[in-house]
Amino acid sequence: MIYLTRRERFSAAHRMFRPGLSDEDNLKIYGKCSNPNWHGHNYVLKVTVRGEIDPDTGYFMNATRLKEIINERVIEKLDHRNMNTETDFMAGKIATTENLAVAVWDELKGPLEAEGVTLHCVRIEETENNFIEYYG
Amino acid sequence: MIYLTRRERFSAAHRMFRPGLSDEDNLKIYGKCSNPNWHGHNYVLKVTVRGEIDPDTGYFMNATRLKEIINERVIEKLDHRNMNTETDFMAGKIATTENLAVAVWDELKGPLEAEGVTLHCVRIEETENNFIEYYG
Amino acid sequence: MIYLTRRERFSAAHRMFRPGLSDEDNLKIYGKCSNPNWHGHNYVLKVTVRGEIDPDTGYFMNATRLKEIINERVIEKLDHRNMNTETDFMAGKIATTENLAVAVWDELKGPLEAEGVTLHCVRIEETENNFIEYYG
Amino acid sequence: MIYLTRRERFSAAHRMFRPGLSDEDNLKIYGKCSNPNWHGHNYVLKVTVRGEIDPDTGYFMNATRLKEIINERVIEKLDHRNMNTETDFMAGKIATTENLAVAVWDELKGPLEAEGVTLHCVRIEETENNFIEYYG
Amino acid sequence: MIYLTRRERFSAAHRMFRPGLSDEDNLKIYGKCSNPNWHGHNYVLKVTVRGEIDPDTGYFMNATRLKEIINERVIEKLDHRNMNTETDFMAGKIATTENLAVAVWDELKGPLEAEGVTLHCVRIEETENNFIEYYG
Amino acid sequence: MIYLTRRERFSAAHRMFRPGLSDEDNLKIYGKCSNPNWHGHNYVLKVTVRGEIDPDTGYFMNATRLKEIINERVIEKLDHRNMNTETDFMAGKIATTENLAVAVWDELKGPLEAEGVTLHCVRIEETENNFIEYYG
Repeated sequence: MIYLTRRERFSAAHRMFRPGLSDEDNLKIYGKCSNPNWHGHNYVLKVTVRGEIDPDTGYFMNATRLKEIINERVIEKLDHRNMNTETDFMAGKIATTENLAVAVWDELKGPLEAEGVTLHCVRIEETENNFIEYYG
Repeated sequence: MIYLTRRERFSAAHRMFRPGLSDEDNLKIYGKCSNPNWHGHNYVLKVTVRGEIDPDTGYFMNATRLKEIINERVIEKLDHRNMNTETDFMAGKIATTENLAVAVWDELKGPLEAEGVTLHCVRIEETENNFIEYYG
Repeated sequence: MIYLTRRERFSAAHRMFRPGLSDEDNLKIYGKCSNPNWHGHNYVLKVTVRGEIDPDTGYFMNATRLKEIINERVIEKLDHRNMNTETDFMAGKIATTENLAVAVWDELKGPLEAEGVTLHCVRIEETENNFIEYYG
Repeated sequence: MIYLTRRERFSAAHRMFRPGLSDEDNLKIYGKCSNPNWHGHNYVLKVTVRGEIDPDTGYFMNATRLKEIINERVIEKLDHRNMNTETDFMAGKIATTENLAVAVWDELKGPLEAEGVTLHCVRIEETENNFIEYYG
Repeated sequence: MIYLTRRERFSAAHRMFRPGLSDEDNLKIYGKCSNPNWHGHNYVLKVTVRGEIDPDTGYFMNATRLKEIINERVIEKLDHRNMNTETDFMAGKIATTENLAVAVWDELKGPLEAEGVTLHCVRIEETENNFIEYYG
Repeated sequence: MIYLTRRERFSAAHRMFRPGLSDEDNLKIYGKCSNPNWHGHNYVLKVTVRGEIDPDTGYFMNATRLKEIINERVIEKLDHRNMNTETDFMAGKIATTENLAVAVWDELKGPLEAEGVTLHCVRIEETENNFIEYYG
């Protein structure tokens, strides 16, 4: 069993808030991250897949194909976008990095299985000091 | 003459657009950076000041004081904010990194001179692949 | 189950030596790290906690609260200090990164459980080329 | 149980190709990585070992000794070399990062066990965007 | 006057040697960098251009256009290639980073002037510990 | 004219204090950096030299020779040492990064000129957020 990780980046706006609560109450829970005028980040996404090495090619998965899937399913829907209002797989969800990691997992799991590999970990770095990992 | 650089970070939303043009025309000039729904970045700001070493202290400027000035004048007005609508010193300006660097210079020049040092360079890194430097 | 990692930094002096041995014998075991006049590092500490996402907030733990606990229990006792002589939780221990990682674990485990999350990993990077991980 | 990771670097040339196939067929599988005129990388190698802390020394393994083993067994055979034609432990293998990680594991496992520690992970980063991990 | 820097990367094989000298003599001058079987690096290229901000757009040069020019003129001729035998603008030159920086400058100067900006600096990082800068 | 920069690292203990002042007065000037029990850092040193490319070798200075000079004159006197009490060229000086940069310049200027190159810049990074540059 071998593990391959691909790093991609996206720049997005977001706001954390809980529908039904006032801006004041959201401020108590989320602090400055609840700013109604939005803020944003350069997110770093690391997707790890696992599988067996193919003895014919020495590859277990082509890194270029992995990049394509991540870009098509995830990056194009997040990069230079507003995660709260424009990203279909975040609709109706609070835009925390935790929820984002789970949503990215759900987007990638099927397409990667169709390639014959297993999704192992989705890691999202929001700043240089905070990151979330989800293993399904 | 010696040079001291302080690195600070801020996370902001922005949009590049030229007032009076349609979204379509802005798209032609600014590409995906003109998205009307905003996007955002983790910006890295590096401020360089220059001066002579004080032989009594071995310092030329206290790095903590430099940090305070940058935070008070610049970071608090940008971090977790929308640069286009909330940052006073960007009002009426197109939110490019070029214009931001010049505006940050104008904010910092006077307060730093009041400390007896000279502002040498404002550097703003928008992504790991692009940065702007302004020397006045 | 989701994992959140917070990165903090501290700059400390230390010396590795085994009480009861001569400086010469300590030099044989620890090399230049046993210098009786001390040396120091910019340490990077990464604390990983795990738990379930709260569906109401989308958070599993507030990163600001995690930062507060790490700073109060660990960073304030190490940063700009001499780890051998000033850090209470290192008293009587040889100041290796291994022992430091275990001691930091012991400091953080209880306070994090009191917040309803589980401490998963303490990682301490002494230089860009060496790091220690402890999982309890 | 504690984990120690040592980071080393090597700069090597390589080419991915499957003996018996034409350059055209190799191009279909490996893309530009199959260039018959070679290309190269600055590889980053991270070797993680695990064991128990020795209460007498506070060490679980001397990092300098770990560095020596990695350099003698792996780095000297790869650094500033052509991995396909000069590295004995890659002879007859397709020079993918996957195969390289397994080969490095096989080189290091025995010598590390002879030191009383267990090899836990070999991680090889080919670029800032791709890395492979192997746990045996 | 404002400065914009774009960072690009390429992975190439090379060998330093002086035609007309034996492998032994080249080894004396270039050490392991003269290995006749090649080696390679992940090079980082930073191109800095300078100019005036256009008050209509807030840009001084479109970073996407800068990226295109660097890729077309430089990266495509170096990435996943052998710099000594495949890169037209290095033909007949010793493949040192110094010579490479000057050659990249010569490739970029004209096309950038045609865009109305001035090439200010070409910086090439061969490893994390060595880089060359050329200002024309 | 071309510029070559070499990056080296050293880990040292230090304390900032002005002889003749009490610990209380030093605390007012230097804050926690005046801790009488020392603290320390992983310093990064970047030395830039400039000169003309030798057309015979394509080098302007051998990077290995530059590394040797920096290590012999500077790193060996600072690494894993107490800068205040053990480093000859810091004797009688307040151990600020400013003074350290000037002292390193004075150590390197002559030996580099003897190699036929000109010292251009000494840059010392004390943390990821602060660095000093000195150009003579």
